[in-house]
Amino acid sequence: MTRRKRPTMIDVAEHAGVALRTVSRVVNNDPTVGTGFANRVQAAITALGYTPDERARHLRGGRSGLIGAAVRNLSAGHPVLGALDATACSHGLTVLATATADEEDREREVVLSMCGRHLDGIVLEPVGDNHQYLSREIDAGTPIVAFDRPAGGITVDTVISDNAAGIGAAFRHLRGHGHHRVAYIGDEERIFTGHERAAAFRACMAASGEPVAGLVHPGVVEPARIAAALDAALRGPDPATALITGNASTTLEVLRHLGSAAADLAIVGFDDFAVADLLRPAITVVAQDSDTIGRTAIDLLRHRMADHTRPVQTVTVGVELIVRGSGERPPTPEA
Amino acid sequence: MTRRKRPTMIDVAEHAGVALRTVSRVVNNDPTVGTGFANRVQAAITALGYTPDERARHLRGGRSGLIGAAVRNLSAGHPVLGALDATACSHGLTVLATATADEEDREREVVLSMCGRHLDGIVLEPVGDNHQYLSREIDAGTPIVAFDRPAGGITVDTVISDNAAGIGAAFRHLRGHGHHRVAYIGDEERIFTGHERAAAFRACMAASGEPVAGLVHPGVVEPARIAAALDAALRGPDPATALITGNASTTLEVLRHLGSAAADLAIVGFDDFAVADLLRPAITVVAQDSDTIGRTAIDLLRHRMADHTRPVQTVTVGVELIVRGSGERPPTPEA
Repeated sequence: MTRRKRPTMIDVAEHAGVALRTVSRVVNNDPTVGTGFANRVQAAITALGYTPDERARHLRGGRSGLIGAAVRNLSAGHPVLGALDATACSHGLTVLATATADEEDREREVVLSMCGRHLDGIVLEPVGDNHQYLSREIDAGTPIVAFDRPAGGITVDTVISDNAAGIGAAFRHLRGHGHHRVAYIGDEERIFTGHERAAAFRACMAASGEPVAGLVHPGVVEPARIAAALDAALRGPDPATALITGNASTTLEVLRHLGSAAADLAIVGFDDFAVADLLRPAITVVAQDSDTIGRTAIDLLRHRMADHTRPVQTVTVGVELIVRGSGERPPTPEA
Repeated sequence: MTRRKRPTMIDVAEHAGVALRTVSRVVNNDPTVGTGFANRVQAAITALGYTPDERARHLRGGRSGLIGAAVRNLSAGHPVLGALDATACSHGLTVLATATADEEDREREVVLSMCGRHLDGIVLEPVGDNHQYLSREIDAGTPIVAFDRPAGGITVDTVISDNAAGIGAAFRHLRGHGHHRVAYIGDEERIFTGHERAAAFRACMAASGEPVAGLVHPGVVEPARIAAALDAALRGPDPATALITGNASTTLEVLRHLGSAAADLAIVGFDDFAVADLLRPAITVVAQDSDTIGRTAIDLLRHRMADHTRPVQTVTVGVELIVRGSGERPPTPEA
């Protein structure tokens, strides 16, 4: 197999017997090029099958139609990423997504790499709380929108869910079903949403006058950590009778660890997930509005692309409690 | 907010009082540039905070470290995409993923757009059976690897699962548990995997001497179509007592539609999914080896990047039957 080289503007210039800048002017539809030259260049372009290098056109300041999305992961389901993609597509834009694996160094590397490609804009699910490495890109006019979590140390358009309202709704729902010992197990507090939800839970406990000791368990979402948190919450003289899980992966780990013992607890999960309705009992959740989050992020990005001087906005999107069964059980005294 | 323009090579040339080509030669470490000129250019670069445009460097033939992945969707979970990303990352490469939505036109658009960005290579989960639009890119040296389904009309490295072996294992498993009326509901046959699995099922039926009438139901994965297929398979004088579902989304739609009636059937799903073990009964599946598929695709791509003349390979990755409960029920005569 012989590797056929893609014809370049230089090849066209040689074939046509004209200067490189003449080819450039023809390719850029410069009307001041003489007809004779233009015809020779066009003939050479046809003969060689030359197509302008897309990157070269971008260098002249055009739009690529590509939007970068730096998200937590590409392996598990990501409904907001799906909504970003669908909305972008409806505006003739293509989303290129990459995973940060929730690692700050990785985020910095992949996002700056995207900036180097001069995409039309970047949608970021930020890790950590310092994104000053993007200041220069923002100043240079790269539109950036943060979603799910705010970016730190920079001022960019942001879309977040109303985490406090969601935790409040879950807490009141469980209290309404008679639970006074409610525990929380969620994501690490270095993650913005993990912090917001744990903090909202502590605030609910304080407002209700209940002691929080042994009931608030943010941390890494790993089987051993979740098992330890469940152990702390459900053992002892005054165990929890109800549980709020801080995100979908925590909910699944909790269900996996508890097995049939999950039936002894009332459970409300933050985040809906694909088969929450198929589990028995089906899982009551605080659902984020992924479609609105994705659509809003793309809309903010498009507005920023059109007018980089408009005021920076943060949009908080409402959440919804979906009652399915797991969150409506009364307390079992012997739990 | 004032938009600060990124300094260009032209700005550096003006600031240094040298020709643009001199700046270009300094940036490219051309040793023939006189020391006086080089120092003036370096001083201007420092003063202006100029950094070479990454795209400009790519135009000179370097590698970007970026790999494009055109996959079916970004919204539902995609374990192979996760494995592609993890393997790429371990080799210092970044995956940029985009969704084709299983639409041929969309695939062509997003993949050619990726080719225009001169990524180091492209991993493709092909839609349809004609990918000749990529011939020119392949000839020009763009490494392309297909996974899950082969690309049509072009010869590229490919990684697929052993679909026929998986369907055969599911079929024999159900026969071993006493089922003689086994139905298949799966994806559209225009999708390669949908065709392969339906064809393998028909071959199993033919080999067993069972009539296939009313038992083979490939088609779009939509609630109404799945409901109609179930109706056809489970009604009538001689209904199916067991079911093979052709992919994870079909499995979920079947479970959703059947509700508690799913307990009357033996079910084996093709493709494992995140909570198959949490459902009651847990779902017996034919699991694809996502890690091996993703790792093999990136390995093939890296080998192709290193040597575009090596023979084209198709790697078939084995599948595994995971027994969990749903596929081990005996036939119920009154089903």
